[in-house]
Amino acid sequence: MFADRLAGDARRIQAHFDQVLGPLDDLPVTRAMRYACEGGKRLRGFLVLESARMLGVDPARAIWPATGIEALHAYSLVHDDLPCMDDDDLRRGRPTVHVKWDEGIAVLAGDALQALAFELAGHPDCGDGAVRADLVLSLARASGARGMVLGQALDIAAETAEMPLTLEQITRLQAGKTGALIEWSACAGARLAGAETAPLSRFATALGLAFQIADDILDEEGDAEKAGKRLRKDAEAGKATFVSLLGLSGARTRAAELVEEAGAALEPYGAAAECLRQAARFVISRDS
Amino acid sequence: MFADRLAGDARRIQAHFDQVLGPLDDLPVTRAMRYACEGGKRLRGFLVLESARMLGVDPARAIWPATGIEALHAYSLVHDDLPCMDDDDLRRGRPTVHVKWDEGIAVLAGDALQALAFELAGHPDCGDGAVRADLVLSLARASGARGMVLGQALDIAAETAEMPLTLEQITRLQAGKTGALIEWSACAGARLAGAETAPLSRFATALGLAFQIADDILDEEGDAEKAGKRLRKDAEAGKATFVSLLGLSGARTRAAELVEEAGAALEPYGAAAECLRQAARFVISRDS
Repeated sequence: MFADRLAGDARRIQAHFDQVLGPLDDLPVTRAMRYACEGGKRLRGFLVLESARMLGVDPARAIWPATGIEALHAYSLVHDDLPCMDDDDLRRGRPTVHVKWDEGIAVLAGDALQALAFELAGHPDCGDGAVRADLVLSLARASGARGMVLGQALDIAAETAEMPLTLEQITRLQAGKTGALIEWSACAGARLAGAETAPLSRFATALGLAFQIADDILDEEGDAEKAGKRLRKDAEAGKATFVSLLGLSGARTRAAELVEEAGAALEPYGAAAECLRQAARFVISRDS
Repeated sequence: MFADRLAGDARRIQAHFDQVLGPLDDLPVTRAMRYACEGGKRLRGFLVLESARMLGVDPARAIWPATGIEALHAYSLVHDDLPCMDDDDLRRGRPTVHVKWDEGIAVLAGDALQALAFELAGHPDCGDGAVRADLVLSLARASGARGMVLGQALDIAAETAEMPLTLEQITRLQAGKTGALIEWSACAGARLAGAETAPLSRFATALGLAFQIADDILDEEGDAEKAGKRLRKDAEAGKATFVSLLGLSGARTRAAELVEEAGAALEPYGAAAECLRQAARFVISRDS
């Protein structure tokens, strides 16, 4: 069930991007925006669409924030890959934006994708004003200096720290860096439905951490070709990861516990949450 | 009247920034955010506050989008100054963010300021959901690939074009690059009041173009020390400007006509619009 829905949602999101990005002026910056929005697992967009489906929200409403969170994720990757940040040449198996164009285009395309994310998340077709304002405000908080950028800022600060990070510190860092957007995605369905976000928030917090631990495991023993990006950067840079702190087997055990926690958080939704439960198992079993 | 209100509003906006940015984690990125938000004329924030005052909106509501548009303007300056963009060392008379810290911090601080802009413009204290959603959605459109970033993308494309831009092309470029945020600022008061935006939009479109022509004149004959930034870059790069296309005296005449147009657009508001009329005269008489 999960694999089919993930694939179907990825196609829907790409079709929506085509519709939204198609009418823009044809310029290097807008071409780079389209390029950056192609490919990827679309896990965040799927979490928006699936949490909305589970709560009976019309997919024609949910597709807007689903595409919005993927635009935001795409912007963060374009900027992360810049030479002054992680300096990566390869992303999703293709040259990164600053390699294919140049750094100025990459900065601008990322900036425009961030604005687009808010435009999509607050689109009139998402719902009434209160719902749209709630979606946008929560997205701004999740992505800014108390969410994703905080995680990145802590990561940069850690590079110059004298001691490697502790498990507690790296958990906080990752809760911002990858956790905040995953949490927003899963809660978006509840926001669209006007329902409680707390159970989905608990689900996504566990899922996000499991996702990051799985990323560290993949980084340690994965295949760069399958992953479509450079691996083992953190280990080479002497950075603490969940694997360096817990060991490979300890990290696997912790990820499996978190998947259990994520599943338990979905209890209030009963059988309707089966696909989200499968998503949680997927994030620790993926090979890319 | 205008000068006092501009100065008072600049102080209010700085105080609001202190309140909003103060509680953030103390890290290089958040320090750079605070630094980037200091100083400047705060013309955009003033336009939000003054259009709101004119329409009887409580300043406690208007301060949020006023600070939001200044956060957005600050982000655009931090990214514009990067070596891969305009490569400027000096801004508002001080070292630019990537000079004082580094390029990675500048990219991240700009990214976080953009998210902050949407967080402030959609803050619950701005009004009901419909007003907040309207403010945020219009800001996303004004700042993204159909607004400010479009202007910047056209500017980059012009650098590699074989012919210098025509007056029509440079007008479209500037309407995006500086005009879109100025228009959003002036219309924000109407959005907060639930009033028609059309007259303020006409006012701001003329004002924005006059502002840019005045900028080109200042760039040609201004004092770099007063301006707090490097001048005559466009002329050195052989780029078309309003001065290169209209001549100095032609540019001055056109700017004065636009100030007349801006004033005429304010007729529906009568005497209540006097301060905005003065603002229009100010933008073509300023020396920085």
